[in-house]
Order: sequence, then C-alpha cells, then structure tokens
Amino acid sequence: MSSIFTKIINGEIPAYKIAEDENFVAFLDAMPLVKGHTLIVPKKEVDLIFDLETEEYKNLWAFAQKVAKKVKSAIPCVRVGIAVVGLEVPHAHIHLIPLNKVEEMNFKNERLKLSAEEYSEIQNLIINS
Amino acid sequence: MSSIFTKIINGEIPAYKIAEDENFVAFLDAMPLVKGHTLIVPKKEVDLIFDLETEEYKNLWAFAQKVAKKVKSAIPCVRVGIAVVGLEVPHAHIHLIPLNKVEEMNFKNERLKLSAEEYSEIQNLIINS
Repeated sequence: MSSIFTKIINGEIPAYKIAEDENFVAFLDAMPLVKGHTLIVPKKEVDLIFDLETEEYKNLWAFAQKVAKKVKSAIPCVRVGIAVVGLEVPHAHIHLIPLNKVEEMNFKNERLKLSAEEYSEIQNLIINS
Repeated sequence: MSSIFTKIINGEIPAYKIAEDENFVAFLDAMPLVKGHTLIVPKKEVDLIFDLETEEYKNLWAFAQKVAKKVKSAIPCVRVGIAVVGLEVPHAHIHLIPLNKVEEMNFKNERLKLSAEEYSEIQNLIINS
C-alpha cells in the first residue's frame, strides 16, 4: 500500500506544496508544531533516510537547504531546525521547523489547528519569499 | 573566541571521538539524551548549517550517514533520529539520536550522567561496529 506521502505526491491526497522537482517534494505539515513547519520527502518510497543511495540522500539534503532558506525568509524565527524521526510514517521525511526556542521541537506538543486560509497564506509566503 | 566544538576539534577539550576526516568530526554528546547520542560537526566554524556552501553541506550529511549506520549497528534502537537545533552553540552540528520512541527527542529531557567507562564502552562499540 502507498504511504500517505506517496498519495500526496500522486495528488490523491491534497497538500500545501512549497516546492517540487523530479525527485523530491516539500509541503506544509498537516499537523504543524509551529507555523511554517514543512516536510521534505523523496518521491522514492524508502523507510529509512539513511538507506537512500548516497547521491540521492545528498541531493535530498540540498533540496532541503533551498527550501529551508525560503522558510527562514518567510516565517519569523531565530532559525529553522531539522528533525528526522520517522517512527510513524514509514516513508523517509525531513521536518523543517521554524524555531524560536528549543521547546518547540517536541513531537509530543499539541499541534496547531490552522484554517485552509492560514495554510494558503503560509504556503504563499514561503513560495514567494 | 573559538566555539566549544572548535576546542574539541583542536584537542583543547577532550571528547569521545567516533570518526574524523579532513572536514568533519563525530563525537559522543557530553549531555546525552540517550546512550549513543552523537554529534556531527564541520571543522569549519559556521553558525547556521544552511549557510555551509552546498558541496560541503552535502558532504557533511554524507559523513553523518556513515556514522549513523555505525551508531545503528552498535546501539539497540528502532532507528537513529536526526536533529539540528543550534540555539545554544553557534557552531553548526547534527545530533544523531538512537530512538525507541518519539519522546526521546526532546532537548528539555534530563540528560544521562555516564561514567568515563560507560562513554568509552559506547565509543568502542560504535567505532568497532
């Protein structure tokens, strides 16, 4: 069965996409810890990020670097943090989390509930930054 | 003034090193969240990981990939998580954290107090894995 991220990549599940190329996609996390919380996903469905072939793995991180700079420009924060956990969805993904304090990187924190309008606004801010 | 990580790189402060090459070094975190918590640091002292030049940034992640596979082999865990926060030490670094549950990736958790013997044992396990 396809992962939820493969369904997003295939357009079967909607998402607020930020960037996309042949191999990777970035979209807003549907359960954000903070505004601007973004996921970076390889289109190839692998479970463990470290199991990606080294060139693809390096290119994934380069894609994340470009997106992170846009997130940093768009979202007020001290810096954009990175997390890879992967205990829930077995399709490798990188969290980019605009951080003002370390407590914000805690996946047990309550998630924000944003309206479609808020998601669209954040999406446009990042895309246009 | 040199960062604490530059002092480790220069041998002015001791650390339990796991791996080292011309550009990068890996050593055990002195305030580990879990056993095997490892830091990956570029020898070049830059604050923000995303400000590294893209080739060096990609090579840093490739170095982290190699170390993470050794950590995974040595330390019983479901997977090795990644975190980049950087709100405390202004010298870019990647946390590799052997995870069994998501709660373990919380930088507000109490840190482990390990003896020199325990650190050495973990260091040797990872180096020899």
